[in-house]
Amino acid sequence: MHALQLDGPRLDTLRPVRLDDPAPGHGEILLRMRAVSLNYLDHAVAIGSYGSSSGPGAVTYPLIPVADGAGEVVALGAGVDSLAVGDRVAVHPKVSWPSGRASAAKAAPMRGVNRPGSLRELAAVSADSVVKAPAHLGWEQIATLPIAATTAWNGLVAADIGPGHTVVVLGTGGVSIFALQLAKARGARVIVTSSSDEKLARARALGADFVHNYRRDPAWDVAVREMTGGLGANLVVENAGAETFSRSLSSARHGGTVFVVGFLTGTAAQVDLLAIIGKALRVVGNNTGSTQDLADACTAIAAQRIEPAIDRTFALADLREAYGQMARGAHFGKLAVTLDWPRS
Amino acid sequence: MHALQLDGPRLDTLRPVRLDDPAPGHGEILLRMRAVSLNYLDHAVAIGSYGSSSGPGAVTYPLIPVADGAGEVVALGAGVDSLAVGDRVAVHPKVSWPSGRASAAKAAPMRGVNRPGSLRELAAVSADSVVKAPAHLGWEQIATLPIAATTAWNGLVAADIGPGHTVVVLGTGGVSIFALQLAKARGARVIVTSSSDEKLARARALGADFVHNYRRDPAWDVAVREMTGGLGANLVVENAGAETFSRSLSSARHGGTVFVVGFLTGTAAQVDLLAIIGKALRVVGNNTGSTQDLADACTAIAAQRIEPAIDRTFALADLREAYGQMARGAHFGKLAVTLDWPRS
Amino acid sequence: MHALQLDGPRLDTLRPVRLDDPAPGHGEILLRMRAVSLNYLDHAVAIGSYGSSSGPGAVTYPLIPVADGAGEVVALGAGVDSLAVGDRVAVHPKVSWPSGRASAAKAAPMRGVNRPGSLRELAAVSADSVVKAPAHLGWEQIATLPIAATTAWNGLVAADIGPGHTVVVLGTGGVSIFALQLAKARGARVIVTSSSDEKLARARALGADFVHNYRRDPAWDVAVREMTGGLGANLVVENAGAETFSRSLSSARHGGTVFVVGFLTGTAAQVDLLAIIGKALRVVGNNTGSTQDLADACTAIAAQRIEPAIDRTFALADLREAYGQMARGAHFGKLAVTLDWPRS
Amino acid sequence: MHALQLDGPRLDTLRPVRLDDPAPGHGEILLRMRAVSLNYLDHAVAIGSYGSSSGPGAVTYPLIPVADGAGEVVALGAGVDSLAVGDRVAVHPKVSWPSGRASAAKAAPMRGVNRPGSLRELAAVSADSVVKAPAHLGWEQIATLPIAATTAWNGLVAADIGPGHTVVVLGTGGVSIFALQLAKARGARVIVTSSSDEKLARARALGADFVHNYRRDPAWDVAVREMTGGLGANLVVENAGAETFSRSLSSARHGGTVFVVGFLTGTAAQVDLLAIIGKALRVVGNNTGSTQDLADACTAIAAQRIEPAIDRTFALADLREAYGQMARGAHFGKLAVTLDWPRS
Repeated sequence: MHALQLDGPRLDTLRPVRLDDPAPGHGEILLRMRAVSLNYLDHAVAIGSYGSSSGPGAVTYPLIPVADGAGEVVALGAGVDSLAVGDRVAVHPKVSWPSGRASAAKAAPMRGVNRPGSLRELAAVSADSVVKAPAHLGWEQIATLPIAATTAWNGLVAADIGPGHTVVVLGTGGVSIFALQLAKARGARVIVTSSSDEKLARARALGADFVHNYRRDPAWDVAVREMTGGLGANLVVENAGAETFSRSLSSARHGGTVFVVGFLTGTAAQVDLLAIIGKALRVVGNNTGSTQDLADACTAIAAQRIEPAIDRTFALADLREAYGQMARGAHFGKLAVTLDWPRS
Repeated sequence: MHALQLDGPRLDTLRPVRLDDPAPGHGEILLRMRAVSLNYLDHAVAIGSYGSSSGPGAVTYPLIPVADGAGEVVALGAGVDSLAVGDRVAVHPKVSWPSGRASAAKAAPMRGVNRPGSLRELAAVSADSVVKAPAHLGWEQIATLPIAATTAWNGLVAADIGPGHTVVVLGTGGVSIFALQLAKARGARVIVTSSSDEKLARARALGADFVHNYRRDPAWDVAVREMTGGLGANLVVENAGAETFSRSLSSARHGGTVFVVGFLTGTAAQVDLLAIIGKALRVVGNNTGSTQDLADACTAIAAQRIEPAIDRTFALADLREAYGQMARGAHFGKLAVTLDWPRS
Repeated sequence: MHALQLDGPRLDTLRPVRLDDPAPGHGEILLRMRAVSLNYLDHAVAIGSYGSSSGPGAVTYPLIPVADGAGEVVALGAGVDSLAVGDRVAVHPKVSWPSGRASAAKAAPMRGVNRPGSLRELAAVSADSVVKAPAHLGWEQIATLPIAATTAWNGLVAADIGPGHTVVVLGTGGVSIFALQLAKARGARVIVTSSSDEKLARARALGADFVHNYRRDPAWDVAVREMTGGLGANLVVENAGAETFSRSLSSARHGGTVFVVGFLTGTAAQVDLLAIIGKALRVVGNNTGSTQDLADACTAIAAQRIEPAIDRTFALADLREAYGQMARGAHFGKLAVTLDWPRS
Repeated sequence: MHALQLDGPRLDTLRPVRLDDPAPGHGEILLRMRAVSLNYLDHAVAIGSYGSSSGPGAVTYPLIPVADGAGEVVALGAGVDSLAVGDRVAVHPKVSWPSGRASAAKAAPMRGVNRPGSLRELAAVSADSVVKAPAHLGWEQIATLPIAATTAWNGLVAADIGPGHTVVVLGTGGVSIFALQLAKARGARVIVTSSSDEKLARARALGADFVHNYRRDPAWDVAVREMTGGLGANLVVENAGAETFSRSLSSARHGGTVFVVGFLTGTAAQVDLLAIIGKALRVVGNNTGSTQDLADACTAIAAQRIEPAIDRTFALADLREAYGQMARGAHFGKLAVTLDWPRS
């Protein structure tokens, strides 16, 4: 079968390879992979800047890259009765975390990081590491779900978000837009920040109740408090990092949650412990989640017929351009890649 | 009646005053105050370094100081049927927070900060702001309970601590020693850090499973990971502040909780967001808790016959010395003051 | 002031009385009562069939009846800063349960049962036993909220209902219709049962996804399982009683919740323990809830601009007719009464 | 290898068989089985009275019986790094429920019911369906853990039992004695009921705070309320069934939990809905739990060095006698069987 392999921590080592077709073992299914989506971590893996260089969660090269994927079930291994041939599934990158609370052993093994990722024609994966896709979604949309929708969903669950609550999402990347859509599905009000009025207009079209351009007015935390009658937000999905962290604490209400999932702007933040104590805040770190969490997000997405926002879908031939666009971080929602392998 | 009053943010403004005897209103009880305990915040209030200078939680002078107290019910206001004359109660400083989740409105009004505190002969207080004391405790021990036991208990609840879990407490102050005792009552293992071998020996006598002298070996976080087979602690009660915060994150296990309650060593901490994300930590701020939380702590204290550790009990005449000892922070457990008012 | 008084457990003892105007004490507000709504318990109180005849929750006669009410703040007692003159509030019948978990002491004292109810011109009530009303509601709508909306909301919270979940409500009374509306606000699917196609059509108009006429087909539990792909419902709001209880258990999914709030059809039910064990069901009893719970429901109602369904609004002169209609139980949503006292 | 096989729903069909030695597949380990314990369900399976006769959880014959077991790891399949050869493990009967919340798909597949049970020399099982045993336990003690300790632990978790809480256990069978020991480990008070003073004395020796002989005084619910100052119990572990269910409801406090796990005395109970509503009780059904739940129980058992109570250990030759004793139900704690296979 076709696959793409990263030989080391440089994107220019990415090259096509031919591998033996896999066969599904006990409890596994064989998938024909149809699409992938890129996350920021895929770019970090490709340039050698992902996480620690050792330990159970470290990247191992050579590697079939890309964590998220969508595939069609083409064969069932022994003992699999929860899926059928023809089912369309989202492939969850956490291979050893079917459900239950987090642990290092569950969080570390991850497709596209230290286990074969989604850039391959066929994959034999554990049946409990995939989720049947909502019926209204196409392949590329299914491929957007695993990391971003799971992360966004877990933020809403961690803060028990419901009608009348206020959620702040920073920027308009994949996690932010899913958090916007899923928060609306739970009845909440959503505030979106961005440096682009055009993106804010698109966020409004997806249901954002308030938007704030932080280029025009950097004090988005003050704006959030004003929009909430002085109270602040119940939940801030903090996927930006060191530059925004103080404002995230400042924009949360008494007893509110700052859900920390990203660090695009750095990892070494200043924190005012007095803000955390005085407002009894909860700062909750998150590292994707379980296959069950993805299934719960999909249940909501199917029930509310949520359409994942894809900024652009690339052909496989344009994969490097997709990585480049991910690196620039200027997209709205997700970047997807169709797995249109060359005839051979 | 006798009382002591702080006229401004300097301890030397503290002076005796005579006030009219209060009468209990609807839903209130009249208490003869018998003892108080000091918390670090009382010292901060007395020297003008407590919290913000404005806003609903700010200190107001002149003020009858000291948050925690113990008193005897001497009269019941109308509509009070949950208490009887003669009952011995712990007086909770949060006057408007009987139960339920935190809010700014519930957290801000506080005896000894912006409401009359415990250094008075008589007090008319709401019946739902006191808790009947465990029968085995004396007046000074009862007075140690409100802030320290409530805070320690809420940390254990926030992390759902039970048998087989590991709790780290930093130092041997009031919150730390209650956290040690209550964690043992819930079946957990406890690690205590201190700069004094003598205090560590006393912690051991109270049930600590492991102790660590951070003067001899500053890397207590490494030690905690070693003591827990590499996993780290389920809960770190972070009552120290900026100097220890990074090690607190480092000593917690995947999915663990850092419960932030104090800032003796400063409030501006550096935080590594990657640690919070990678280990899916929960950093939970806390600001005492409700009267119901104190009642829950007292239920545990009564059931397990826990003896609050009092480093020293002062006579009222030695109150300034008590403040001074609190400022030095070298005590083990709590500092109490008997309310032995002068004959007049 | 005007009031109505029930002298004993018979509706024909209900008579107008004149009472001294009350004055608000510390922590209280003075309300001009503007409307009430009837609940089934009000009818039971009026005919002497409510609960036990002794104990802390028993009815005490003579009594100003009716639990739920809406009023306008006309004066503030000392120490009240959370409300202002002119505020419109829903009056919660649980006078001693501002927030926090249930206890006998919190649940027993109740307006219209053993504390003065809402059928009076003026009421001095504790500020923490009322909730500021959503701005889009009229007096009669506000009066429908306390028992029914709080109960419905607590059912959804107990089962953690969100997008993709299925909720079953039995019949179209007040709790059922609020449960329908609030479940939709949380993104859930709702199934409504009734014996009337006309009421089912109205439920559909309010957002019900599926309806079932149990007169035509008594096996509504089988229908629920079919509508949910064989899984059953996440939550059944069981406000009917003994006749439906077995089918409620049967219609719930593995791990589902049966929220037990009413017993119109009797209290002595047969239960198959095997169903509870085999499907790991949770049968959760509920007795209204706290003022905070009502406030949470109101937050959702305000945010989603939910319009309470009022079957009919009565003039005070037609109060007996209102009781009669409540007794027949054929209404859709709530029955309200405008407090249009006679000129005197 | 040796095994025992039940050819149909009669104990006299149980016979020795020889089977091919299994090999561990991907994610599996090979175990040498060393001991089993009997649960009431094993007896029901052996006489054809277990659960429904169809559906995913039904018994399938021929069957290697007995759900619980203990084994030694003798080989690792591919991809297993959480265990090592030589590890001693408790074998959890729920083969498809590693962690997370219950579902029909997770609960139904069960060793000794519709999957091969523990009465065999060797077993290849999924690594995530076993738990490393506490170091202080012998083989027979390890074999007592899966169903009984998991069930007892989940009851304590469901009711969030801690210091000062009161737990009632009915009788002195396996679940009851583990509930007693684990409740004590969490700091709770425990009341044990039995018809035998001798068993009650043994329960006292294991830490029971109060005991009640219901033969002498059938009204054990009244006694529980008296022992708890009129409040009732926080948790009743209801493993008896229809005969005791009403008293279980009656003995629980406001907001308390009745954890329903057994039905020795029948499944068709009368229930007073008014008790459930009036006291806001939670009746929680339970069907063992996940492997993670067993691991959590083992963490507590290891930390507190709890010794499982074994009434009698049988040789394999006396297996029928063990079944007989299980049927009589007069044992204290658990019945274990050593797997001393005949030389061949």
